[in-house]
Formats: sequence, C-alpha cells, structure tokens
Amino acid sequence: VRGGVPEAILGDGKTPAEVAALAATAVETTGRVIATRVTGAQVAAIRRRLAADHPGTTIRWRERSNVVVGHAPDFEPPRLEADVGIVTAGTSDAVPAGEAAAIVGEMGARVGRIDDVGVAGIARLLDRLDDIRAHDVIIVAAGREGALPTVVAGLVDVPVIGLPVSTGYGQGGDGEAAALGMLQSCTALTTVNVDAGFTAGAQAGLIARQLDAARGKRP
Amino acid sequence: VRGGVPEAILGDGKTPAEVAALAATAVETTGRVIATRVTGAQVAAIRRRLAADHPGTTIRWRERSNVVVGHAPDFEPPRLEADVGIVTAGTSDAVPAGEAAAIVGEMGARVGRIDDVGVAGIARLLDRLDDIRAHDVIIVAAGREGALPTVVAGLVDVPVIGLPVSTGYGQGGDGEAAALGMLQSCTALTTVNVDAGFTAGAQAGLIARQLDAARGKRP
Amino acid sequence: VRGGVPEAILGDGKTPAEVAALAATAVETTGRVIATRVTGAQVAAIRRRLAADHPGTTIRWRERSNVVVGHAPDFEPPRLEADVGIVTAGTSDAVPAGEAAAIVGEMGARVGRIDDVGVAGIARLLDRLDDIRAHDVIIVAAGREGALPTVVAGLVDVPVIGLPVSTGYGQGGDGEAAALGMLQSCTALTTVNVDAGFTAGAQAGLIARQLDAARGKRP
Amino acid sequence: VRGGVPEAILGDGKTPAEVAALAATAVETTGRVIATRVTGAQVAAIRRRLAADHPGTTIRWRERSNVVVGHAPDFEPPRLEADVGIVTAGTSDAVPAGEAAAIVGEMGARVGRIDDVGVAGIARLLDRLDDIRAHDVIIVAAGREGALPTVVAGLVDVPVIGLPVSTGYGQGGDGEAAALGMLQSCTALTTVNVDAGFTAGAQAGLIARQLDAARGKRP
Amino acid sequence: VRGGVPEAILGDGKTPAEVAALAATAVETTGRVIATRVTGAQVAAIRRRLAADHPGTTIRWRERSNVVVGHAPDFEPPRLEADVGIVTAGTSDAVPAGEAAAIVGEMGARVGRIDDVGVAGIARLLDRLDDIRAHDVIIVAAGREGALPTVVAGLVDVPVIGLPVSTGYGQGGDGEAAALGMLQSCTALTTVNVDAGFTAGAQAGLIARQLDAARGKRP
Amino acid sequence: VRGGVPEAILGDGKTPAEVAALAATAVETTGRVIATRVTGAQVAAIRRRLAADHPGTTIRWRERSNVVVGHAPDFEPPRLEADVGIVTAGTSDAVPAGEAAAIVGEMGARVGRIDDVGVAGIARLLDRLDDIRAHDVIIVAAGREGALPTVVAGLVDVPVIGLPVSTGYGQGGDGEAAALGMLQSCTALTTVNVDAGFTAGAQAGLIARQLDAARGKRP
Amino acid sequence: VRGGVPEAILGDGKTPAEVAALAATAVETTGRVIATRVTGAQVAAIRRRLAADHPGTTIRWRERSNVVVGHAPDFEPPRLEADVGIVTAGTSDAVPAGEAAAIVGEMGARVGRIDDVGVAGIARLLDRLDDIRAHDVIIVAAGREGALPTVVAGLVDVPVIGLPVSTGYGQGGDGEAAALGMLQSCTALTTVNVDAGFTAGAQAGLIARQLDAARGKRP
Amino acid sequence: VRGGVPEAILGDGKTPAEVAALAATAVETTGRVIATRVTGAQVAAIRRRLAADHPGTTIRWRERSNVVVGHAPDFEPPRLEADVGIVTAGTSDAVPAGEAAAIVGEMGARVGRIDDVGVAGIARLLDRLDDIRAHDVIIVAAGREGALPTVVAGLVDVPVIGLPVSTGYGQGGDGEAAALGMLQSCTALTTVNVDAGFTAGAQAGLIARQLDAARGKRP
Ligand SMILES: Nc1ncnc2c1ncn2[C@@H]1O[C@H](COP(=O)(O)O)[C@@H](O)[C@H]1O
Ligand SMILES: Nc1ncnc2c1ncn2[C@@H]1O[C@H](COP(=O)(O)O)[C@@H](O)[C@H]1O
Ligand SMILES: Nc1ncnc2c1ncn2[C@@H]1O[C@H](COP(=O)(O)O)[C@@H](O)[C@H]1O
Ligand SMILES: Nc1ncnc2c1ncn2[C@@H]1O[C@H](COP(=O)(O)O)[C@@H](O)[C@H]1O
Ligand SMILES: [Mg+2]
Ligand SMILES: [Mg+2]
Ligand SMILES: [Mg+2]
Ligand SMILES: [Mg+2]
Ligand SMILES: [Mg+2]
Ligand SMILES: [Mg+2]
Ligand SMILES: [Mg+2]
Ligand SMILES: [Mg+2]
Repeated sequence: VRGGVPEAILGDGKTPAEVAALAATAVETTGRVIATRVTGAQVAAIRRRLAADHPGTTIRWRERSNVVVGHAPDFEPPRLEADVGIVTAGTSDAVPAGEAAAIVGEMGARVGRIDDVGVAGIARLLDRLDDIRAHDVIIVAAGREGALPTVVAGLVDVPVIGLPVSTGYGQGGDGEAAALGMLQSCTALTTVNVDAGFTAGAQAGLIARQLDAARGKRP
Repeated sequence: VRGGVPEAILGDGKTPAEVAALAATAVETTGRVIATRVTGAQVAAIRRRLAADHPGTTIRWRERSNVVVGHAPDFEPPRLEADVGIVTAGTSDAVPAGEAAAIVGEMGARVGRIDDVGVAGIARLLDRLDDIRAHDVIIVAAGREGALPTVVAGLVDVPVIGLPVSTGYGQGGDGEAAALGMLQSCTALTTVNVDAGFTAGAQAGLIARQLDAARGKRP
Repeated sequence: VRGGVPEAILGDGKTPAEVAALAATAVETTGRVIATRVTGAQVAAIRRRLAADHPGTTIRWRERSNVVVGHAPDFEPPRLEADVGIVTAGTSDAVPAGEAAAIVGEMGARVGRIDDVGVAGIARLLDRLDDIRAHDVIIVAAGREGALPTVVAGLVDVPVIGLPVSTGYGQGGDGEAAALGMLQSCTALTTVNVDAGFTAGAQAGLIARQLDAARGKRP
Repeated sequence: VRGGVPEAILGDGKTPAEVAALAATAVETTGRVIATRVTGAQVAAIRRRLAADHPGTTIRWRERSNVVVGHAPDFEPPRLEADVGIVTAGTSDAVPAGEAAAIVGEMGARVGRIDDVGVAGIARLLDRLDDIRAHDVIIVAAGREGALPTVVAGLVDVPVIGLPVSTGYGQGGDGEAAALGMLQSCTALTTVNVDAGFTAGAQAGLIARQLDAARGKRP
Repeated sequence: VRGGVPEAILGDGKTPAEVAALAATAVETTGRVIATRVTGAQVAAIRRRLAADHPGTTIRWRERSNVVVGHAPDFEPPRLEADVGIVTAGTSDAVPAGEAAAIVGEMGARVGRIDDVGVAGIARLLDRLDDIRAHDVIIVAAGREGALPTVVAGLVDVPVIGLPVSTGYGQGGDGEAAALGMLQSCTALTTVNVDAGFTAGAQAGLIARQLDAARGKRP
Repeated sequence: VRGGVPEAILGDGKTPAEVAALAATAVETTGRVIATRVTGAQVAAIRRRLAADHPGTTIRWRERSNVVVGHAPDFEPPRLEADVGIVTAGTSDAVPAGEAAAIVGEMGARVGRIDDVGVAGIARLLDRLDDIRAHDVIIVAAGREGALPTVVAGLVDVPVIGLPVSTGYGQGGDGEAAALGMLQSCTALTTVNVDAGFTAGAQAGLIARQLDAARGKRP
Repeated sequence: VRGGVPEAILGDGKTPAEVAALAATAVETTGRVIATRVTGAQVAAIRRRLAADHPGTTIRWRERSNVVVGHAPDFEPPRLEADVGIVTAGTSDAVPAGEAAAIVGEMGARVGRIDDVGVAGIARLLDRLDDIRAHDVIIVAAGREGALPTVVAGLVDVPVIGLPVSTGYGQGGDGEAAALGMLQSCTALTTVNVDAGFTAGAQAGLIARQLDAARGKRP
Repeated sequence: VRGGVPEAILGDGKTPAEVAALAATAVETTGRVIATRVTGAQVAAIRRRLAADHPGTTIRWRERSNVVVGHAPDFEPPRLEADVGIVTAGTSDAVPAGEAAAIVGEMGARVGRIDDVGVAGIARLLDRLDDIRAHDVIIVAAGREGALPTVVAGLVDVPVIGLPVSTGYGQGGDGEAAALGMLQSCTALTTVNVDAGFTAGAQAGLIARQLDAARGKRP
C-alpha cells in the first residue's frame, strides 16, 4: 500500500526458510524487507537467500532489538519532515524501543533517543525535558510499573504513545503491570501491547507522515 | 496548561457537591468546565452552582454520553484546521464515542461520525469508506470482539485509535475481549482503556493540534 | 464407535513407547491410526512399531501440523458427499488448520483451503469470497485478535466454526484474545479451544456426515 | 439476508425506546422481530410501538427466557425438515436453553427438549438416550462444572454444541468453569459463550438449514 | 495486646447490631473502639448502644473515610514522638487515606497530609517536597496507574508504604493496576492491599512506635 | 507425628544434595523416606547417600509417578483395615494417580485402581461400577474438563476426592478447567490442587485410618 | 438415594414459586426438605406451600446461614455415631459454617463448634485445641488469607476439610486468596469452593456415615 | 544518594557484558557493587571486569541467593544500631530470604535468621518466639499458602514485612496464593512482590536506618 505502514515480517513461530522466502518476496515487490522478533538463524537464512536472489541488497541487523532491515540497491528510503522522540526508563527497555526506532526510521521520520530516565529518579527526567520536548510525537517505553509515559505525558503538549516492556517478575510481571498502568493513565496517553515496538513505531510514523504532508503544503 | 489537553472532571466516585465545586473552579480559572461520566444529580448540582457563581455560563449536557460542558460568556473556543473521524460498530458504542466526540470538539477539531458499520456486515463498512477516509485521524469504537479498528486500520493511511467498549457478556465480556483484540491487532493501531472516550478524544485532539500548527505555518 | 468421530491419540505428555503402543492397538482394532500433536520421536516410534507389528501400513506424517496418520493395507477410507472449507488468516495458522484438515479428510469429506486472507487486508478476503462460499461448512483459523471468523460468518450462509490460534504476545497473547473474541462474536459462530484443530475438524466432519446421509437418501 | 440467521435485537444496554424503534424497523423490513435479553419495560415499549405502527402483529413473550418475538400478519415462518434437540442439566439452564429454542424455532427447525438430566445422576440421562438420539443436531446447556455436553457428545453420533450457563459461585462461578470445561472437552464439541443461547440456536439452525436443503433435493 | 496495633472492627458484612455489640465490648475492655468501613446504619447502632452502656463516650465519625472512633471518658490516647506523612494523588484517594490517618492518629503519631500531588502534574509534587520530607515514614495513596508511591520513594530517604486505591475502570480498574504497579516498583516500597488504609496506617504506626521508643531512650 | 500423615520431601526446587540430606534424616528418624516430584538426579543422589549412611534400606522408585520410597531394614509398614479406590480418566492421569497410590500405600491402606474410564465414553465407567463401589473412599483423577469425579460421586455413597490433572491446552489448560470444574461440582466432592496426588492420597489415608480405628474397636 | 447425601434445593436464581414447588415435592417423596442460599421471600413461599400441602411439617429457618429445613411429622432423622467439628476464624465465617452445620446435622452426625480462633491470634486457637481434637473429622472455615485450615491440619490427626469464605476485598478478595491458599496448603487438606458449606458438610457427613457403619459393626 | 537504599543491578535480562560494565561503574562511583538475580555467567564477567579495572575489590557470591556483592579495598561498610529478623517457612524460601539478608547486611543492620518454622507445624514456630521477638523489624518469607507472616505478625509488636516466595504448583502456584494471602492478611503486614527479597530487605534497612538515627541522637 503506497504511503502507509511498510509491511514487516514477524519472525515469531516461523522457520528460517519461511522467513527467508517472505524476505525475498518483500525485496522483490517493494525493494525493502523489514523483519522483527527475528532469531540469529532467521537472519542467517535471510542473508543467504538475499545474497543469492537479490545480490547487492544491504542488510542491517539490529541484534539488540531483533530487527533486520534490507534495502535493494535502488531502494529510495522516504524522508519525512517530522521528529519522533523515543524515551526509555532503563536499559531493559532497549529491545522494544529499538524495534520502534527501526520502524520509525524506515518510515522516514527523524528519531531522537532519551534513555535511562525512569521515574524512580525523577531528576534525571527533568534534566532531559528540553530534549524530550523537541519532538512532534513521543514514544515512551517502560517496564515494571510502567509509570514513565504518564509522567512524560504530563510534561509535554504533543501526542505520547506508551510502550509497555516485558520486564518485572511476580504479580504483574512480564509487562502486565506496565500495560495496565498505561491503560489506566489519567493523561491523554494511547497504548500498544507489551513489547509491541513495531506498533508504537508505526503509529508514530503515521502521525509523522501526516505532519510531513501538512508541512509540505507550505509553499 | 495553555495548548494541551483541557482539564476534565471525572464524575466517578465524587459527590454532586464536590463535582460542582470543581466545576466552579474550572470556569473561574479557564472559562470552561468539562465533566465526564456524570450522573443526573451531578449535572443538577453543577447547574445550580454555576447559575449562582457564574451566571451566563452556557451549559450543554450530552445525556447519552454522560458529558457536561459549560462555557463562560466570554470563553472563546479553539478552532483547529483538522478533521477527526469517529467510527462506531453499533448503537451500544454511542456512550464512549460521544464522550470522545465531546473532547475532540472542545479541543477545536471538526468531528465526523460514521456509525453502525460493525464487522459482521462488512458491506456497510465498505459503503462508507470514502467518508471514513476524509479525516486526518480516526477513532474507532467497538465492543464485544472489537475487530472494527483492525479492519479500518487496514483500509486507511492515517493514524487510527482503538476505543474498546464495555459491551458483551460471559467470557471476555465488558470490553475485555475488545481491549485484548485491539492490543493484539496486527495493524498500527494504538489503544485506550475500555470506555475511555476521553483519552481517545484527547489523543486525537493532540494530533489535530499538531496538524493545525503544521498547516498554520503555511504563509 | 461406528460412524462417529475416529479415535485419535493425543501426543502431548505421552512417551514415544506409549504412543506407539496405542498406535498399534488402533491399527489392529480399526485399521487406522491418527495421532495429533506428535513429536518427531513419537513418529519414529510409531513407524518402528507398525513396521514390526503391522507391516504394509502406509504412514503419512504431516510434519507442519504435527499429525500422523496410518492406514492398514485393507483400510477403506470413508468418502462423504460434502465440502468443508478451511480458511486461515496467515501462515502462523497453518499448524492447527492442517490438524483440522487431516481430521476432516480422515472422516471422508472434501477439504478446500483458502489461505492468507486476514482482516488487516479485507480486499484479499473479498477476492476469495466465491471460493469460500463453495463449501457446506467452514472452519476459520485466526490468531492474535481472531476477527476473521466473525467477518467470514457475516459473509456466508453456512455454519462457521472459529478456530483460535496460539499466536500473539503480551496481553491476550497465545490465542487468548482470539478465543475471547470468537466467543464474543455477534454472529452465529461456534468456537473450539485454542489450537484445537482436531475438535474443529471433527465437528465439521460430523456435520459433513449428516449432510452426506441426507444427500444419500436421494434416490 | 435471505436464508441465513434472522436479525435479532440484543436488549442489553438499550433504552426501551431504542429497542421499540429497532423492533418497528425490523417488522417493517422483514415482517418479524426477535429481541433477546429483554426486560419487561422493553417488552412493554415494543408492544406499544408495534400496536401503533404495525397493528395486527402477534407478539409472543417467553418471559422465562427474556425473548420476545413478533410476527406481522402476513409473515410466513420458515419450516425446515430437521430436528434440533436441546438438553439441559437443571432448571437453572432454562433461560439460555429457552433463548436457543426460540431462535431455532424461528429458523424453522423442529425443537425437542430433554430437561433435567445433569451428570450428577447419570441414570436419568441414560433413560432419555433414545429421545436425545432422535435429533439431527443437539445443543446441551449446562452450568457449574458444565460436564453434560461432553457426556452427551460421547453418546451420540451427531454434532453437539455446548452452551455454558452462568450458574455457580466462587472460583469458576458465573459459567466460567462450564465454558472452560467445554473448551477442554475431549469430544468433538464446539462451544458458544456463557448464556449465548442465541448463538447456539443460530448455529444449530444453520446446520438444520443445510440438512433441509440436502433432504429437499430428494425428488 | 499492650503496645501493638489497636483492635479495629471491620464493618463489612456485619449487621448493625453485631457491630454495636463488638463496639460495646471494645470500649469495656480497652476504653476505645475503632470501626472501619462502616455504614451510616452501623454508626447509628454504635451510638445508641454506647449511649446506653457507656455514657460519656465521645464518638467521632469521619464520614468521608467510613471510620468511627469512640473514647471512654477516662481513655488516655497514646502520644508518640514520630511523624507520619500521608500523601495522596487526587480527591478519590481521600477515603483510604483518611482511614490510614485515623489509625495512625489513634496509635499516637502525628499525621501530616500532602494532597493532590498526582504524577500527571509532577510540578505540584516537587513544590511540596520539603513538606513530604519532614516525616519519619510516609504512606502514599494512589489509584488508577498508582505511580505516585514509586516517584515519592525515589525522592525521600525514609520508609514509604504504597496504598493502592480502588479507582479506575476497564482493564486494571478498581485498583488492580495500582496494586500491581506498586508491587512492581523498582524502589524500596512495601505495599498493602487495595483500599487497605487500616493496614498501611497500622504498619506506619508500628514504625512510629519503634522510633518513639528509640528516641525515648535518650536521657 | 505418630499416627498422622507421614512426612514427605517435595523434590521441586531442591538440589539433589539437599534432597539426599533430607532423605537421610528421614530414614534416621522415622525408618522411612518418601519423596515426591523427584527427578532422576535426585533419586540417584538419594540412592548414593542412603547406601552410604543407611545400608540395607530398600528403595523403590515409581518412575512414572516421580515418587521414591525407602524403608530401613527394620521399618514396619502400617496395615489398615480399609480400601481406597483410585479412578483415572485416561493414561495422562497416571502421574498424580500414582503419587496418590504411593502415599495411600505407605499409610497402610489397600489400594484398588480403576483406570481409563473417562466421561467421553460413559459405558466403560458403568462397566466398572461394582469395582469402584468396593472401596471405602475414592480418589478420582481427571484432567482437561475434569468431569469424572462429579459423575463418580453421583454413583457412589462414600467420600470422593477430586484430583485435577495438569492436562489440556489453551483456555483452561494445565488443569485449570479441571480444578474449577471440581470446585463447581454439584456433588459432595472435595478437591485438592492440580496434580496434588500427595494431598489426595494423604486425606484418603487419614479417612482410612479413622475407619481402621473404628473397625479395630470391634472386639 | 438411600444412605447418601440428602437432596438440597439451591435457592440461587430460582423464583419463590419454583423453590416452594421443589420443596413440596421433596417433602412428599422423602419426608424432608433442605434448601440453601435462600432469601426471605423464598422461605415465605415455602412456608405457605407446605402449610397448604403438607400441614404439620416443622420448618426451621437458620436465617444467619440462609438455610431452611422442613421435616414432615413422621420424618425420622438419622443418628450417626460420629462427631464433626466446625472451626471458624471469625464472625464473618458464620454463614457458610452454619450451612455446613445444618447439612452435617441433617445427615445425623453430632456437630461441635469452635469459633473465633483465627490465625492472627494463635493463642486462642491453642486454647481450644482439646475441643478441636475431640472430633472425628473437622471442617475449618476461613476467609481473607484462609490460613486457619492449614494450621489446624498441622495440629490434628484426623481429616480436615477447608471451607474458604467470601470475605476480604481488593486483590484476592471475595474468598479467592482463601481458596488458593487452601489448595496450596502443605498439609493433607482437601478443599471445597468458596462459601460451599453444603459441600463441606456433605463430605464430612459421608465420612461420618462410614465411621458410624464401621463402629456399628462392633458386636 | 547518600543515606538511602544502595543501588543494585538487577541481573534479569541483561547480558554478562552489560552487568559487568554496570558493576565497574558502581565500584568506581560508590566503592561497592550489589547485583541480584545473577547467573553464573554474569558473576564470572563481573569478576573478570573488576579484576582488570578495580583490582583488590573483594567479591562475595551468595550462590544460593543469586546475589553478588563487591567492595573496593577502601569501601567502608555502614554499621547500624538495629536488628532485622528474617524468618522462613521452609528450605525453598532460602533464595529470596538470602537476597533480603544480603541487602539488609549491606545497609549495615544486623541480621538474625529463624528458619524452617512453617505454619503446618506451629510448635516449631512457638519454640523460636523469643528469638523472633529479639528484632526491631522482621521479614517473613513464605511460599505456597504464605500464612506464616500473618501468624508471626499476630505474635510480635514490631513491623513485619511479608515476602511471598514462588513455590507451589497448580492453582495459585508460583507465589500467587502467597502474595494474595499476605495482601489479605488481617494483621498490620505490608507486602512486597513474589521473590522480591531486595525490596523487603531495602525497606527493612530503611526502618533500621531511622531507628539507628533515633538511637544515635542519644547523648
Ligand atoms: N514486532 C511486531 N509486533 C507486532 N506486529 C508486528 C510485528 N512485526 C510485524 N508485525 C505486523 O504483523 C504483520 C506480519 O504478520 P505475519 O503475516 O505473521 O508475518 C505485519 O504486516 C505487521 O503488520
Ligand atoms: N489435538 C487434539 N486436540 C484436542 N483433542 C484431541 C486431539 N487429539 C486427540 N484428541 C481427543 O483426545 C482423545 C485422546 O486423548 P488421550 O486418551 O489422552 O490420547 C481422543 O479420543 C480425541 O477425542
Ligand atoms: N507432591 C506434593 N504435593 C503437595 N505437597 C507435598 C508433596 N510432597 C510433599 N508435600 C508436602 O510438602 C511438605 C514438604 O515440603 P518441603 O519442606 O518443601 O519439602 C511435606 O511435609 C508434605 O506435607
Ligand atoms: N532483585 C531485585 N528485585 C527487585 N528490584 C531490584 C532487584 N535488584 C535490584 N532492584 C532494583 O531495580 C533497580 C535496577 O534496575 P536496572 O536498571 O534494570 O538494573 C535497582 O536500582 C533496584 O532499585
Ligand atoms: Mg517504569
Ligand atoms: Mg466489534
Ligand atoms: Mg485475526
Ligand atoms: Mg453440569
Ligand atoms: Mg496515580
Ligand atoms: Mg475428564
Ligand atoms: Mg484466615
Ligand atoms: Mg506458608
């Protein structure tokens, strides 16, 4: 679909061969492949297949985020006149935050990162407030009690998307408390599922596209 | 806070006197009051109090959505150059959809309604597709299995916000299946909590404000 | 039991030796063995045991669906005058859909497959509508938000059985949202448990048997 | 839609006026109205409205099942050559079983009732086995532990639909244990949601329609 | 028990007569009665009974917190050299916060209140930081996403007890998200059950007693 | 404690060395060791340790039930004048049923087994009814929908203990539906936790001890 | 059924007329009626109906336990040589404990009550230990954290049945924590559902019957 | 932060290299590192890194509790005039109890252990009562039904912190029943999450610091 969210292959529960075949089709039809939640074996299969079928494709594996992106030699990435901020509470939030960053980047928006500003030390967050406010839309990733998106949304005037992260153990662990807390937030926060960096990034990308179009109309 | 989401009083669990007092303060400080999830008794108390303290305040009670809005005589409502679509699956979705519409309207965006296009009769939805596509951002309210936001998000190129509605009975009833289904959607959907029309509307309003600003920059 | 659902061995939680013994008994008493949710080790044990005890048994392992079927040389498979359609949303639905297909086939009905018609791209579904409508009863497998059975049931006039699939992660993952969504469907859908391809297939097979009998009464 | 499941109005969460308006529209467009989960006030509103707008409409209120059905004077109810059995475990199952019976009847199939044969006294069930077996498709309603559908499905060769009932208290109460038990059944049972008599009846009606058509083809 | 937590009558699920009888016994044996979660009818019964049996007892009903306390004429309330702070996020937290305050007060500690400093407007919280820090132990009540105790615990060096409040609706409502969020907190927070103001207050009171004793040892 | 339930070591979450040390202590103080939910490595460690410290101890490992029992040379096992029946629905119930049998046996009662009489084929159960009725107390193990204990309790006049088994997948899997179904049973059934063969066996053993004592009082 | 658990009518979800009709049938066929979880209106209807149809029936309403029992003039209640102890943690446990006591009494065993010995004050429990130990089988009712049955089972050598009570609020409230705690007990405890006094009493009664028979065999 | 809870690295979900880097930073900035929930590989990486970067650091790995602590040569551990008791129900509670002990110790308080006093054998607990009472604040770890903290809190006059442990299987297993039971406790107990020894220890340490300060003020 021209203009919307790029197709992405979800690695979960697919064999390396299946993922590689889908990747080859994606490169053939769109000049690009994005695959999320991939394993090393799936990435290796993609590399082999694209080397054979689509030589010259540049492949970038963000190992920490389990995302792989491939661009055919002639692929022209989009460029949007819009800034997306990605804020994280701690290092454990890196995986889905990185997934979100990859999708936002592939959709063409500029990505700014503000890391390690969890609510248990609110001063670090306040120190970075100007950085945070310099964006058009903000994704906030947080695990455990997931309070950071609420605090950020109370400090900015732009749309904030909460991204719960599957950290924490015991009652409400694996991101459950974070997800429920974001759904209960008394701010104008929308939420995606636990670890759904793709979804958060894609929604931010869509907002960025709207802004880019609105700005582009300026003569 | 100038520019962001307007304050709103949540009626749940407050006495009529408390709601009325908060309403008077709101009118005094901002020229406006918005209260959601209000009962008839709360609305009556607001009316009495504002008639006494702030005569001339116009009060509008959207009874079907349990929202009441009051404007002081000199209040100047904002006007945004942006369109928000609100889509519902069936008549039971009217309450939170109306709540969302009220907030979007108070934030100054234009609101378009596309009702009764639930997924069990996909033809009705397809008939209204052009209407739906004529908006900058779309809120989709749906209860029971909550599939409508996913289907809509697959058909448009703009940001879609899912609004689960507390219909349905038995396993997954009261909006649980709808909320989980929206969180599991394979589209770029963000979600708010069950019946959280305010949140959906406020997020749509923030996106509208960004678009308005972007468009406004045109000379 | 003559006429009803064929016995099937559930591989889960049994040792290879136990499954093999049950398989040998099944072939001895009914001329056929069906085993579901089997591992490679269980299949190997079955093969060895049947080669020893029941030479000549043809064995077919649908590895992708974890189903193994064996027919003694003289086994006469049933043939029913009825068509069962199996519809899937995406490739992750292949495992339980294949399990259902195997059971339907063993019960003697004709099986038609309509794959990759998930609700996020409703056009692909509408393109295949005539194919879908060409069946007497339809099984629809879908994971994540599990909306496809509802959409299909709104488009056809025959019984539809929803088969939730254990895909998705986070809140409502592993098929929970899909199962709850199917139970909440506002159509005439019945449901089976998550990944219960056997059950969906067996119920479809029983309907096919009734239809076959009704048609067979025609002189 | 000609041939499929008749439209039905769900009373839950609608005002009497809304239900009455929908009923009038239904009689006007199809000659019939079916409303489920209705209150006395809703039924009164329907009666008044239809008396005014569609005089001569015969109205039948199954008070015990909260179902109301109205036929315009010229409405010709369908007649199917098929028998649906409805089995209940105890008197508390009467409400959803009656809802199912109403829908099956409106779809034109013959309805047979076998009541009070719960699994705690298996002898009563076995006494009625011939009655049960005299049907083409069987709905089995049961609350609390919900075991009856499994036992019945083990005794017959035709499709069985489990209908969990919202009885029971404490852990697994309100039909949860019954619904989960039916989903876990090791027979070829399909299930509907708790108290979803409409859904069970509609699916049984669809199977009956298929059988009627198959039988009708006989010269 | 001399020195520990005072006995309190839990009004839930008792008749007015039962509560009144228990109150009379408490005054007789300890000179004091504390009853929580009481209804108006229960308070009236207590008043009547104590007026008859223990004339002169002073009774104080904190209606907003559903707590009633009675002191016999000769009852000598304890006085502890310790300060307990009670912090609330919003007005809905008043009920359990007031319950906690009542217990702390009856145990003899000084109570300081810091209200309306919810995390969605972090500036208000920071404005009150010196007030908050002026206590030996702090109870923080918060509903919905329940993030306030975590933020406070990150800002002070004394023990903080989280008190989740049964506000919020939809997924994680009625205090569930708040309770899970506090259990997931990455600070040194301990937690009590939803609305368990008594428990939070009693634990704070026990810490205050320990501090009082330690301070008392000073010559 | 003389007379009551024998101590048993729960293998879960202990190292082989810890289990072996506990086993040695048990043999030393009581002449016997019983360990449940043991792994092969734990059993090996027990064997080595007892061979060294308590030569002559006879060790019996019921591998299928993960139970190991050791008797010192001079240990005199109890003998009770009472019969405990253990009924299973299918082969997957063997593990906890065997655990229960081991405990009952160690407490001295006679154990009778009635296997493979699941409710999906009620005839097999009725065939074994006399066998079942020949016991003083009956444990019934069943997984998935867990209906067998209810059916058995409706057919006998003696105490029945339901033992839910962790079979089944999807919604209500891993014994949840079975446990909830037994708790909801409309018979005089008591229940133990999922797979808690030890508990079921110990309670049956205690009843057997009471009966033995009552019978023993006969001159 | 001669000898087993007496039939009892469950009042929940039945109209007064239905309960009264079932009561009349019960008196007619067995000389006795037992109805549990009854409302005042149901009891009144029973009284009127039995006065008319079965004059002379003595009716006893245990209002605090919502149990009503009627004996026809010639009904001979059973008498068993066995003692059942019923232990409660607090006054809120009275309702299900009373229900259990009524059933045990109707089955003919002697009932001993040991009340108000909750685990938060273990001394009161130890004071009553001889009383508790003077029974053949013990039912222990406890709400909130439900620990009392475990403590009791650790102190006696006879069968203990845990009866969780629907007290408590917040997370694990309404008896959930109590039920789960009893299922997790490391003693030989069996459990019934929350508030299921009937089930606990009936199981205790069955054990009493077995003991009575064993004792009766003494010459 | 001077004075409060020491920073600790949570090993969960971090690579060995990441944990080692964080450890090096901690030693550099504070002279100490504490890491919890660590694996052997993480400990090895820490050792290697500190040996290289901070030679002379003494490292202590409490393998049974998965805690590693490192002190730089010049690190001066705090010493508090306060006693924290740590009580466990059984050997499975050792892991989180040890984690709590490590944190308390690092904060400078004296730690006393009272082990193996679970509620199923209340006599062992009463035997140790004087030992338990000799502390200023008490942490009680318990799994399965988690009743021990309630019983202890009923026997002492000082603050008690419940620490639920992830033992138990089936319904309410993995610490769920224990956590819910502690939240439902009718004593003045506060609770931390399942296995959250760090949190329990840190809160106890904060109370100890307050007491130390209060005692220190004595001239
Ligand atoms: N990490 C992700 N999380 C959620 N959705 C995803 C993710 N990656 C891809 N998707 C969506 O899932 C679809 C792919 O599903 P599949 O057909 O199973 O590969 C894509 O079109 C995306 O819309
Ligand atoms: N994949 C499956 N899912 C659900 N039920 C199954 C499946 N395969 C077999 N069954 C049913 O489970 C029964 C076998 O259970 P078992 O005795 O454990 O082998 C068969 O008779 C089937 O009715
Ligand atoms: N399989 C089992 N299931 C439930 N409880 C058990 C089991 N085996 C032993 N137990 C009980 O748990 C206690 C042992 O717990 P532990 O101290 O962890 O070894 C024993 O005293 C038994 O009462
Ligand atoms: N075992 C533990 N359980 C709970 N919280 C912990 C634990 N260990 C460390 N923490 C807290 O979690 C924070 C570390 O989180 P992280 O940034 O992911 O390393 C520390 O500052 C502690 O407050
Ligand atoms: Mg956070
Ligand atoms: Mg919908
Ligand atoms: Mg789907
Ligand atoms: Mg039933
Ligand atoms: Mg909050
Ligand atoms: Mg079963
Ligand atoms: Mg208790
Ligand atoms: Mg315990």
